[in-house]
Amino acid sequence: MTRHGEQARRLAELVVDFGANVQPGQIVAVSSDTGKEEVARAIARRAYERGARWVDVLTFDPWVKRARLELAPEETLHEVPPWMVDRLEWLSSERGARISLHGPSAPRALEGVDPRRTGHDLLPYLPNSGAVVNARTTNWCVAPAPTPGWATLVYPDLAPDAAYDRLWEVISYVCRLEAPDPAAAWAARGAELKAVASRLTERRFDAIHLEGPGTTLTVGLLPSSRWKAGDSATAEGLRHYANIPSEETHTAPDPDRVDGVVTATRPLELYGSLIDDLRVEFTGGRVTRIDAERGADALRAAVAKDDGSSRLGELALVDGSGRIGPLGTVFHDTLLDENAASHIALGNAYADSVEDEADRRRINRSRIHVDFMIGSPDLDVDGITATGERVPLLRDGAWQV
Amino acid sequence: MTRHGEQARRLAELVVDFGANVQPGQIVAVSSDTGKEEVARAIARRAYERGARWVDVLTFDPWVKRARLELAPEETLHEVPPWMVDRLEWLSSERGARISLHGPSAPRALEGVDPRRTGHDLLPYLPNSGAVVNARTTNWCVAPAPTPGWATLVYPDLAPDAAYDRLWEVISYVCRLEAPDPAAAWAARGAELKAVASRLTERRFDAIHLEGPGTTLTVGLLPSSRWKAGDSATAEGLRHYANIPSEETHTAPDPDRVDGVVTATRPLELYGSLIDDLRVEFTGGRVTRIDAERGADALRAAVAKDDGSSRLGELALVDGSGRIGPLGTVFHDTLLDENAASHIALGNAYADSVEDEADRRRINRSRIHVDFMIGSPDLDVDGITATGERVPLLRDGAWQV
Repeated sequence: MTRHGEQARRLAELVVDFGANVQPGQIVAVSSDTGKEEVARAIARRAYERGARWVDVLTFDPWVKRARLELAPEETLHEVPPWMVDRLEWLSSERGARISLHGPSAPRALEGVDPRRTGHDLLPYLPNSGAVVNARTTNWCVAPAPTPGWATLVYPDLAPDAAYDRLWEVISYVCRLEAPDPAAAWAARGAELKAVASRLTERRFDAIHLEGPGTTLTVGLLPSSRWKAGDSATAEGLRHYANIPSEETHTAPDPDRVDGVVTATRPLELYGSLIDDLRVEFTGGRVTRIDAERGADALRAAVAKDDGSSRLGELALVDGSGRIGPLGTVFHDTLLDENAASHIALGNAYADSVEDEADRRRINRSRIHVDFMIGSPDLDVDGITATGERVPLLRDGAWQV
Repeated sequence: MTRHGEQARRLAELVVDFGANVQPGQIVAVSSDTGKEEVARAIARRAYERGARWVDVLTFDPWVKRARLELAPEETLHEVPPWMVDRLEWLSSERGARISLHGPSAPRALEGVDPRRTGHDLLPYLPNSGAVVNARTTNWCVAPAPTPGWATLVYPDLAPDAAYDRLWEVISYVCRLEAPDPAAAWAARGAELKAVASRLTERRFDAIHLEGPGTTLTVGLLPSSRWKAGDSATAEGLRHYANIPSEETHTAPDPDRVDGVVTATRPLELYGSLIDDLRVEFTGGRVTRIDAERGADALRAAVAKDDGSSRLGELALVDGSGRIGPLGTVFHDTLLDENAASHIALGNAYADSVEDEADRRRINRSRIHVDFMIGSPDLDVDGITATGERVPLLRDGAWQV
């Protein structure tokens, strides 16, 4: 067993048993990157221990992606091999489990590539990913898997080995792997967040207003917008915990009523490009301006993808009592950074974030789903009622409801 | 660039440009294993440089396979995910190029696994692999890619780093990478072998007899059996060199006329199991007995797979003037070891090894294709004419024709 073998084993156990909640006889898809073999193998082994019928590991290589982005004709960069799309449909029709390993495996792989070109190639994200999530046919979980390359990005001042050890240690901490029963720890944290989400849903706010340094944004909600947190369930009622870690409560906004300006509080990694000091303006729900110190073109290309890619699909609120925010660490990975601070996402909405069929037809649809962080302890969040009353929701990172 | 970066680059150039002969606008499939990333990346880059439209790298992990073999229910072990079969059909219908990296990436991964179970799981070999080869729709090449694990298997007495350096060095030698123009070197060697093959085909032998220590075997040929060597062509006439290295000339036998006994002159690696001191008896074309010092059950399971798996699909003759045989090295990999010595293969035949449609219906068909080496300088090979005359073909490893 390697230096991090025991951590990988504990992570795999949490992700397979509690996160994806793999059932005997299931097909289990694992999406990984080169460099994450130890975690992928531990997950495969655990899934077979749980009775999986077949563990379908697909490994993506960022250096091969770089060769494509540098050399392939630009008009082909949006192409997706049909078998990848069909494979996801097969997983959906087979009611498979899906586990994705997150975190930039080799951040240097895409360094210096023309961001206009990176924006055309969204792989391994697939055009039907959003639809399969919304069909609620698969029990799935996204979890981080450290790599040495990612570690040096997060801890540039540490020696490579020390950085890798540190990233494993911190990821073990934010995933609560040191708890005697990590699954029970997540069930408890999920219950807390679900309670907040229920109170937010009950208030039936007409809109949410966010106000902080560089940010003044009003996000309209739909009549049946529902706040979600913690675990999810498939259409057939199989429980799963879709993100580990998860410290957020989120909902689907009205895609036509978003106005104001937001300033990102964390750098955004988008399909391999890093975007720093991002500022986005919205008018009538649509993005009308994107500025950044670096990498703005990558987001501009993503926003031009389709009708829904310039509108919001998600608003998520994060309080300061989770484990990620207080670390003050920038992980350069949405799964972790989005749980440090309140955030919004351009693109596809989660269908189970609204209750009514009529609203389900109104939520945003897109091939993309791009989260970016706008929260901090300095961000004040208010709910606005139908009569225009403002109700404080977050102050200094603490829930007011 | 790593220690073997330049060797990987030269290997990739030979395999992409000359081996698979990748054309502008083609889809290029690369089948790799974990541990072969450097070669896979070099191949992807070179393919894009040649104008590939999309390079479809699929990476197989032997440790995940081990977890399946140890833990999954036995009755599921023969199952193949449908998307892998469909992907190969897609590559075929798209007239794609296919490149496979050979060599046991992590030989220890399958150590100690019940050989009866390994025989059920032939992945990454697919049920439609043979049919796609015979449809001649894809220009393809199989080539070796060294890994540290493979190196310690071949050179157990060297330190791991020295073994890995040595394996790279020897593979570079047998692939003729040190030649000023490796492609030209292979074109020349291919022309030599093609000349021998033509002379063998012209004689229209009724059978071939092999006689040596532990081997007395008569292999009947079909009326239009054709000896093949060197490059191949797709049905549409695109030239490719299917194996690098390749030192053999081969044909398809009459699956009903194989009689006698053969003793393998090299250990056989079969779906992860090692088979030592193999001895196989044939009666009326069919395997009637398998003995081995170790691993016989793995071959017994393979031979029981389907109707054709117990009959011969290939007879290949190898003279002593190639680069592999004289090394005396056991590579534990068919691609290399089969070019050291004459060999036979159980299972699927190559359709282009016979000329007539009537014979094409008679050649052997199977889901498996398992080569094993029976040749050595001590093996005498004769052609037997229709009138029973014996014509010496190989003596002391030298062609007599």
